[in-house]
Amino acid sequence: MTRCTSAESYDEDEVPRVVESLNVEGRVLVQAPDGLKRIAREVADVLEARGCEVELDAGRVFGACDITPGTVVRTDHIVHIGHYPIPEVERQIRELGATVHFLPTHGRKRVEPWMAEEAVEVLHNLGIDRVNVCATAQYVADLELVSEILRESGIEPVIRPGDGRRVATPGLVLGCNFSALDTSLPTIVVCSGSFHPAGVAIRTNRPVVQIDPTKGVLDSEDVEDVIRRILAVRLSKIREFNREEGFEIVESTALGQRRPDVVRVLDRPTWRLRYLTEDALRSLRRRQCVFCGCPRVPVDEAARFKRWVLLNPAELAAVRAGWKEYRLDEIPTPEDVLNALRR
Amino acid sequence: MTRCTSAESYDEDEVPRVVESLNVEGRVLVQAPDGLKRIAREVADVLEARGCEVELDAGRVFGACDITPGTVVRTDHIVHIGHYPIPEVERQIRELGATVHFLPTHGRKRVEPWMAEEAVEVLHNLGIDRVNVCATAQYVADLELVSEILRESGIEPVIRPGDGRRVATPGLVLGCNFSALDTSLPTIVVCSGSFHPAGVAIRTNRPVVQIDPTKGVLDSEDVEDVIRRILAVRLSKIREFNREEGFEIVESTALGQRRPDVVRVLDRPTWRLRYLTEDALRSLRRRQCVFCGCPRVPVDEAARFKRWVLLNPAELAAVRAGWKEYRLDEIPTPEDVLNALRR
Repeated sequence: MTRCTSAESYDEDEVPRVVESLNVEGRVLVQAPDGLKRIAREVADVLEARGCEVELDAGRVFGACDITPGTVVRTDHIVHIGHYPIPEVERQIRELGATVHFLPTHGRKRVEPWMAEEAVEVLHNLGIDRVNVCATAQYVADLELVSEILRESGIEPVIRPGDGRRVATPGLVLGCNFSALDTSLPTIVVCSGSFHPAGVAIRTNRPVVQIDPTKGVLDSEDVEDVIRRILAVRLSKIREFNREEGFEIVESTALGQRRPDVVRVLDRPTWRLRYLTEDALRSLRRRQCVFCGCPRVPVDEAARFKRWVLLNPAELAAVRAGWKEYRLDEIPTPEDVLNALRR
Repeated sequence: MTRCTSAESYDEDEVPRVVESLNVEGRVLVQAPDGLKRIAREVADVLEARGCEVELDAGRVFGACDITPGTVVRTDHIVHIGHYPIPEVERQIRELGATVHFLPTHGRKRVEPWMAEEAVEVLHNLGIDRVNVCATAQYVADLELVSEILRESGIEPVIRPGDGRRVATPGLVLGCNFSALDTSLPTIVVCSGSFHPAGVAIRTNRPVVQIDPTKGVLDSEDVEDVIRRILAVRLSKIREFNREEGFEIVESTALGQRRPDVVRVLDRPTWRLRYLTEDALRSLRRRQCVFCGCPRVPVDEAARFKRWVLLNPAELAAVRAGWKEYRLDEIPTPEDVLNALRR
């Protein structure tokens, strides 16, 4: 499963420094994505030696959104390795009586100057002189290098803060939130995989160039090919959805994936779970489901769920409002999606 | 996965009657094993119509032990279908500020008189005239019929209450608790699968006859064959455990599977998770693990975890105390296990 992309590696030299700056005592839970569990164990050992009562979360963690109320119940502090904070999740955890400390990491692969230079060339060919520059969490640290090379080449980089409820640092795009973009501009996105570039393109409807530090540079035509494939699947799912037939609503228990606004509008008992799996859908015995957790899951993991008509709330809104209004779903939910769901 | 056996079916006529007697209001969470999710949906719809604010748990539920603190956080009442209560779990849920309502179910398959008669014949052949009679949750309702037929045949049935912290009704055996047995007696156990009969035999060290309503009657030699196979695997795992090599401790977040006594004795940071999976063990990158959740998992699911030396706490105690002291692990943890772990 690839949910919110998380750092696959960590600069180990950073660990002692980072832990030293951690001001925690009492009961501490340390959590990290699977690839960073070894680091979590090291951090736990250091905190234990300092007198904390430490537990380690062995569960999967796909993002800063992915902390459940149960994680918080028997803990004073959560040390969460590998993701940038989500401010509204921090707030919810505070309300539940604990404090969370996010320790973002960056991938071992970094943007190399030639990648930014190649992106510049693509932009020059397109006659673009002003561009959003954004990245997923593990490449946010590379935005500075990219901006510098753009500037030297006469292209103005725009790095905007996003919606303060979700986006902790300027230029960060999440699978569920693209608010850091100026939608009147083309975009350079630094990330791996094809979901985020597609998301940026759907959100802005402008050319997108991807710098993938693990692979190289993809120009806007490459990105458009990907979007076409994704949209073909989504539109077929939306058309397949039968309004006469019943459907189930499934929520996530992750604090940053709850969407009470959507659930309130849909107004009927919903299923809740931690991770959406095929087993879970099978046990519900219904072909049509709307997943109100991470809006990226039905889109990016469509292949896993192909036996079901699985939509996210914005796609259910498109069923009601017409498929021309297809839009990328986000958290917080856009008002027009809520309006379409009210019909 | 087959954890604590749960009813696979439900007498649907019971639903309206059972729900009518439910005295709940406010926020209600309805949960059920996968096979009973459809019933959970019906119960939710009735409660919703009555004005409750209902959510449905789409996650897997393997027993009354298997309720997490997170389940409780945003709920006033939990309606839990398919399992007998575990009193100490009820208490913990009360402490977390909610109330749980257990609605046990029984399987569609019931004990038929010929099965009990065949069991009687086996007992007569063994010269047994007094016997424990016990069952797993979905067959507890059949204990009466079995006892009656035994009595008519001159055999005295003994149905004892178990440890009041775990066992809600006389004659009930759980995968983690066999306290309802008089260990000086042979036993008739009504259940499917081979884990419980093996557990009874290891606990009592006396002949065990199984009535499996889905299959028929297994005599004590059949049961002993199964035990030999299970023990061969367990003893090889215990011998394989290398005391010089490090190991990880993994706890469950399920309220009825937490074992703070064991964790306190082992005295080091532990991993916690909801369900033990191969993915989780793989991410810990250690070959040796002690699982402190459901003690049945390492034993009954050994095939899933064969790449790891995965022990339960009683088995770790056997590593330290000698394999001759192999005993079936239980919750609450027996004192001799804790003593061996302290060495």
